[in-house]
Amino acid sequence: MKNNNCIVAQSGGPTAAINASLAGVIDAAIKSKTFDTIYGSINGIQGVLQHKIISLNETFENDDDAIHTLMTSPAMYLGSCRYKLPNTEENPAQYQFIFETFQQMNIHAFFYIGGNDSMDTVDKLSQYAKNIDYDINIIGIPKTIDNDLMETDHTPGFGSAAKFVATSMLEISHDTYIYDIESVTIVEIMGRDAGWLTASAALARNSYSHAPDLIYLPEKDFSTFSFINDLNILLKKNKNVIVAVSEGVHDSNGNYISASRAAADKFGHAQLSGTGKALEQLVQSTIGCKVRSIELNVLQRSAMHISSLTDINESFQLGKEAIKAAEMGLSSIMLTLNRESNNPYKISIGNVPVSEVANVAKPVPIEWINEAGNDVTKEMLQYLRPLIEGEPHIRYKNGIPDYLSIKHLI
Amino acid sequence: MKNNNCIVAQSGGPTAAINASLAGVIDAAIKSKTFDTIYGSINGIQGVLQHKIISLNETFENDDDAIHTLMTSPAMYLGSCRYKLPNTEENPAQYQFIFETFQQMNIHAFFYIGGNDSMDTVDKLSQYAKNIDYDINIIGIPKTIDNDLMETDHTPGFGSAAKFVATSMLEISHDTYIYDIESVTIVEIMGRDAGWLTASAALARNSYSHAPDLIYLPEKDFSTFSFINDLNILLKKNKNVIVAVSEGVHDSNGNYISASRAAADKFGHAQLSGTGKALEQLVQSTIGCKVRSIELNVLQRSAMHISSLTDINESFQLGKEAIKAAEMGLSSIMLTLNRESNNPYKISIGNVPVSEVANVAKPVPIEWINEAGNDVTKEMLQYLRPLIEGEPHIRYKNGIPDYLSIKHLI
Repeated sequence: MKNNNCIVAQSGGPTAAINASLAGVIDAAIKSKTFDTIYGSINGIQGVLQHKIISLNETFENDDDAIHTLMTSPAMYLGSCRYKLPNTEENPAQYQFIFETFQQMNIHAFFYIGGNDSMDTVDKLSQYAKNIDYDINIIGIPKTIDNDLMETDHTPGFGSAAKFVATSMLEISHDTYIYDIESVTIVEIMGRDAGWLTASAALARNSYSHAPDLIYLPEKDFSTFSFINDLNILLKKNKNVIVAVSEGVHDSNGNYISASRAAADKFGHAQLSGTGKALEQLVQSTIGCKVRSIELNVLQRSAMHISSLTDINESFQLGKEAIKAAEMGLSSIMLTLNRESNNPYKISIGNVPVSEVANVAKPVPIEWINEAGNDVTKEMLQYLRPLIEGEPHIRYKNGIPDYLSIKHLI
Repeated sequence: MKNNNCIVAQSGGPTAAINASLAGVIDAAIKSKTFDTIYGSINGIQGVLQHKIISLNETFENDDDAIHTLMTSPAMYLGSCRYKLPNTEENPAQYQFIFETFQQMNIHAFFYIGGNDSMDTVDKLSQYAKNIDYDINIIGIPKTIDNDLMETDHTPGFGSAAKFVATSMLEISHDTYIYDIESVTIVEIMGRDAGWLTASAALARNSYSHAPDLIYLPEKDFSTFSFINDLNILLKKNKNVIVAVSEGVHDSNGNYISASRAAADKFGHAQLSGTGKALEQLVQSTIGCKVRSIELNVLQRSAMHISSLTDINESFQLGKEAIKAAEMGLSSIMLTLNRESNNPYKISIGNVPVSEVANVAKPVPIEWINEAGNDVTKEMLQYLRPLIEGEPHIRYKNGIPDYLSIKHLI
């Protein structure tokens, strides 16, 4: 088969593992007999629309070292976008342009690595291709630190974010325990409306530390009254209470605790305060002990240096499987990770129609949250534990990690 | 010599390396022929006052593995305090109690690992011992992530914090570069009134990334006008501008940019906002592009998992040298690190009278900041580079680091 090419792109928020999936796609495409050239689209589907497309063969052919460095580089080597394709009837010209480009470049397979918004793009392009009878295999490869994709046991990128959260929680507890004074520490964790990543803070618990002592997920309504009550009970027993709270917690009316507040700052402008900061002020005004809030922020999705080997390996494997799936003629699917057994931990790779995944989010099952709504159950811990196992080999240069970045390209 | 004992304690803010110095003291004391028992005082000098003293021999004798784990555990194994001893004449009873305890326990050497407040304790105890003619060697071992101790080339703990800051800055730049939209990212870094740690963000720069594009240290007055001007100039050339700013920057009147603001939050209480947050609001209101502030927070002083091997080894060595110094009859000193050469990097260990170090802070030399006050010079980079080199072996258990904590003891 001559001149049968493929293209890969990345989309949505970054993770430590999304380049491992890209490395898997590139590695398998280069080794495959089916594809001649593997192209990369810069900044997701926008790269196709703006014709920012590069060949990836030269950089990665016969270079296992480059593949390994890509596997262990955070965020997106090809850049990202937050662009959602319009419906076909709204902007047919955009779809025509995309598929004319594909035809000109002999592209017959498209791999999109992303979250549930990105799966919407996979879905729409698949339907359009079918309608115009264009021969292409369109495969979605999941990723998100939020772990909120349907139909997959977990998502690539989540395990690494969970390992960063658990490690940071453990190190914060060390920082907290050294002083012989009463204190409350509130750690705000990402995950939007899903509590998976916040729950993973519980993996920090060990023989000497129960931190986080309290865990609040957005799947249960948050009550400031219960929160202060929980703290007061614990402060009677422990000097230091450490809390893990999801950025997305909300009260029973659905109002986020981090809601915007018209605060007159020194520059005279309103400010949006985080959940942790809002709760810090609440503790200060009601309990009055030493209190500190910590927002783990974007480090959760980019801290490659403390990533999970399990996560990186699975993400790489999914990338390779995507090439196989295209070669087998599959399309309009998202690959999935299925847990075959927990002890020993064993995963198989499957797939589902992408329409079942696009635009839907998977919350934490309510039965994995304790009745008081301030902790997770042992089922949650059993589910989480294998996902953070193992440490990949990160190469350092001059004392900092040696990564590949989109900045190499642009 | 029968029953000649010593005692060690830790004080001030935590670092990733302060337990490495403790491990050095314990290791050398156990192996030394001079000392029978090495005691640890829990929560700094307060442990002596409250008689919370433990023997360290049983836990660490003939156990190189325990010594290694202690070397690579963050924060303080013996806990900390922020307690400053009063002047002798103010509270002679406190000094009497301390030295009666030492006498009862046959303690003739005291090792205090801490910053410049802790060196004040070393100084006062030394003077008192001299006055009452009590035979004791009192040795200060430096540590602080702020790197602001006089008379030493750098401080244990700083290199590891600098490595965390540089690595986080690099990972934040990866997170930032992926989107094809104009943005400003502000990273707030610790260091109180000294800019050393903020300057170390410059170590993140590599062949593809100039982040941080702007660096502001507290050693030069901060002007919000110049800041916005600097940003506007850079935004004409680059899509993404990344800023490293010291928590301690202040205007020409000495007012901190992070000054407290009476903001009516949802709970009706005032709030103290950080420097990064204040600058974020300023950028939002004047430039109006996408802007995010990130506070690295306590992870800077506790992220052992990304510590500097150079720092950990030097800290351990200082601990061992402290025992030697006591055996040589030295007292009322602080050990120092002297840079013999930069290329190859070579250090010797010396000492200074502790009175020269106590209660004084070492700022960044003004000639190591560029004229515009928004970057550091190459002399600063040459000084910083060797300090973050090397990665210690961290042991993991169930996917998270396997540390020793004060919680093991209390």
